[in-house]
Amino acid sequence: MSSTVLEVDIDPRFLADWSGLQGGRPREVLRPVSTAEVSAILRRCHAEGQRVTIQGGMTGVAGGAVPDAGDVVINLERMNRIESLDDIEGLMQVQAGATLQSVQEAAAAAGWQFAVDLGARGSCQVGGNAATNAGGIRVLRYGTMRDQVLGVEAVLADGTVVESLGRLIKNSTGLEARQLFVGTEGTLGVITRLTLRLHPPMGEPQAAWVSASRFEHLPALLRRLRQRLGASLCAFEFMSGDFVALASQLSGTTPPLADAPWHVLVEVAGEAHASPSHLAEALQAGLADAVEAGEIDDAALAASLAQREAFWRLREAIPEVLTHLKPAGAYDVGLPWRETGPYVQQVDAALRAALPEARHLFLGHLGDNNLHLICGPLDDATQHAVCDRIVYEGLRGRSGTVSAEHGVGRLKKEVLAITRGGSELALARRIKAALDPTGILNVGRVMD
Amino acid sequence: MSSTVLEVDIDPRFLADWSGLQGGRPREVLRPVSTAEVSAILRRCHAEGQRVTIQGGMTGVAGGAVPDAGDVVINLERMNRIESLDDIEGLMQVQAGATLQSVQEAAAAAGWQFAVDLGARGSCQVGGNAATNAGGIRVLRYGTMRDQVLGVEAVLADGTVVESLGRLIKNSTGLEARQLFVGTEGTLGVITRLTLRLHPPMGEPQAAWVSASRFEHLPALLRRLRQRLGASLCAFEFMSGDFVALASQLSGTTPPLADAPWHVLVEVAGEAHASPSHLAEALQAGLADAVEAGEIDDAALAASLAQREAFWRLREAIPEVLTHLKPAGAYDVGLPWRETGPYVQQVDAALRAALPEARHLFLGHLGDNNLHLICGPLDDATQHAVCDRIVYEGLRGRSGTVSAEHGVGRLKKEVLAITRGGSELALARRIKAALDPTGILNVGRVMD
Repeated sequence: MSSTVLEVDIDPRFLADWSGLQGGRPREVLRPVSTAEVSAILRRCHAEGQRVTIQGGMTGVAGGAVPDAGDVVINLERMNRIESLDDIEGLMQVQAGATLQSVQEAAAAAGWQFAVDLGARGSCQVGGNAATNAGGIRVLRYGTMRDQVLGVEAVLADGTVVESLGRLIKNSTGLEARQLFVGTEGTLGVITRLTLRLHPPMGEPQAAWVSASRFEHLPALLRRLRQRLGASLCAFEFMSGDFVALASQLSGTTPPLADAPWHVLVEVAGEAHASPSHLAEALQAGLADAVEAGEIDDAALAASLAQREAFWRLREAIPEVLTHLKPAGAYDVGLPWRETGPYVQQVDAALRAALPEARHLFLGHLGDNNLHLICGPLDDATQHAVCDRIVYEGLRGRSGTVSAEHGVGRLKKEVLAITRGGSELALARRIKAALDPTGILNVGRVMD
Repeated sequence: MSSTVLEVDIDPRFLADWSGLQGGRPREVLRPVSTAEVSAILRRCHAEGQRVTIQGGMTGVAGGAVPDAGDVVINLERMNRIESLDDIEGLMQVQAGATLQSVQEAAAAAGWQFAVDLGARGSCQVGGNAATNAGGIRVLRYGTMRDQVLGVEAVLADGTVVESLGRLIKNSTGLEARQLFVGTEGTLGVITRLTLRLHPPMGEPQAAWVSASRFEHLPALLRRLRQRLGASLCAFEFMSGDFVALASQLSGTTPPLADAPWHVLVEVAGEAHASPSHLAEALQAGLADAVEAGEIDDAALAASLAQREAFWRLREAIPEVLTHLKPAGAYDVGLPWRETGPYVQQVDAALRAALPEARHLFLGHLGDNNLHLICGPLDDATQHAVCDRIVYEGLRGRSGTVSAEHGVGRLKKEVLAITRGGSELALARRIKAALDPTGILNVGRVMD
């Protein structure tokens, strides 16, 4: 093991992620600069039965990168090179430790766009984005991280390097290695390099704010807009009236429409080189039809960039809301469109009854099947547990997920079986046993 | 085993697919009607070490569904139900033996579109489409079959049923079972049911015919059009001048532009409810810029539906061309955009030298990284072998694939290692051993 990758004094930044979970003191923190170094580390750990924790940008909120006492930590921050960019086809090859923002910037500099975007962009790494199949704010238009990864290089638990840096949209020649490593949170291998697909830059979006009296009408509205606007529809962010009222108060921003049980921020956008006027017209026509059909109460198009920014200020007031309601529980569940309304109703009633002193606010990306819930203040562990139970048990039988975009990590293992069936979990265990038979890689994440 | 699923007289349709490969006589052909029956068959075969061949619509061209002597055949044609359709969210749940056309028709009847389309639609089955990760004619806009499959139910070699019929765009809870079964040609399990994602119907496309003197200019043209048109660009079909000349002669259709080394059929389309005029204008402007930049020689927009159909008649004259050149070799390789031109040049020169009596014609979907080549007449096995060697060996070092959309089956196993690395193949073997340890499922396909 080269001494350049060994740190004797352990910096606290290697001990905790954004979940706040406290881990143990690792035996050592290694920061390899190459795939060969990752392979050498794992070969040694495999031989010794030494457990390994893999770290990216430490921005996770599920505790996946928090080490156990005695672990060897492999932190990928030094493997941060943009190795190549094909500016004709729109492809990049990067090391896994490159930050999301550096990837976005390199793509933009070449006249392209890297389509995954999320708040932690300056710190999170694309390897971590892949390992958790990150979502973010543009999934409706471009899909999740899985849809951007054309190829990977990964190192298995025994040090074997799997090089599968494909660059092709279409390939029908058996197993795609990338599909084993995307979304499995480092339990099957350490992603070391990625081939990423780029998209043409998006033009200036046109935004509208919609109010509706019944949640059941929102799926019909989303269907209507998808049918009319297709891939041009790039945001459908719903918020409860309670969320908007609190966000308005905390951010000092007046909502564009009167108070209503539900609000939706809708956006459409074309390519950067296209004229946006026909999209604004199509959006306006779709919303007029929805008012006519009784699906929504009212709609307001942003008439200026400043108005659009005010719409988003309301939607993005989540940090202020979390601070105001702290200590709060924040959830990231997923459901089919039709199940979301009944689930919201059920959880709303249960939380009112069980935690009458706490406020609970719903918002989410309906087109991505993603519902966020903020509930607080939760004064103690018992209240947190009550809230967890209501939120997660409510998903039973609804074809949902306990985590749409944040991952399972250490914190959602216990509720995973609510939305993953026994046969899915057994298959995952079989694959884990095949690729990490002695169990050294990110042990205690996703499943025990 | 229920007698209803046993056939003593074996119909010849269970013995051969569209590849023309001759297989052996199976021990029996079973046509289960339910997942439970598939599971019972596999449990028995697993216990007895009995090899199994899985069959869909028998439209494959790689020999994947052709049985060996003594095999038990599991043919899925009776499992053809459309089980449910969510017309609000745009999702279907179907049995794997449903034909592609029945799925397309059910989607259309509910105001949606199933986006994968290919010539064999009336016979091929969606389970087979998933097992080979089928491509087809709309990949540029909607992706491949993998992008349409949200969930699967599959039966493992030992009869274990894995139910993972997810319905969600976003899910970050570990391994996605569907990713093991899509594209692995039945070597890891028998797909029995699928959740499929639907898209809004596409509007009438606007077509243009482009002529270019140098292949190297086509990637620049495609980049230009993607940047301007984004997901509205739905076809970029290139054809060599030789192909167009022969297709014109055999189909009695006059090409819209004068003879040139390369032609491209370009199409754009919006959603069905959108006005198409702005797209036609954007396409026209993009092509005018490309002429100005010297990328293309000329361009003609289809002024009527009849003209558009004439453009496609030329592109789709492949059966006539194959008949004219028979016995012919037909290839389905894949390459990055930048590699396609040099590869075409290399293969063209090598075929001229080695097979001067045969004609060879190039065409393909550049945006899908897919190049088709037709070469004939090839008078004997030696000439076929010479052609194979030139086509496949030419892919070495070019990040390509020996099969973009047809699969490996039995016929491309020997050349698979040209474009799949040793570490990818070893990983695939490890997964195969984990899920089918005694080796009974589709033995002899993809890899030995």
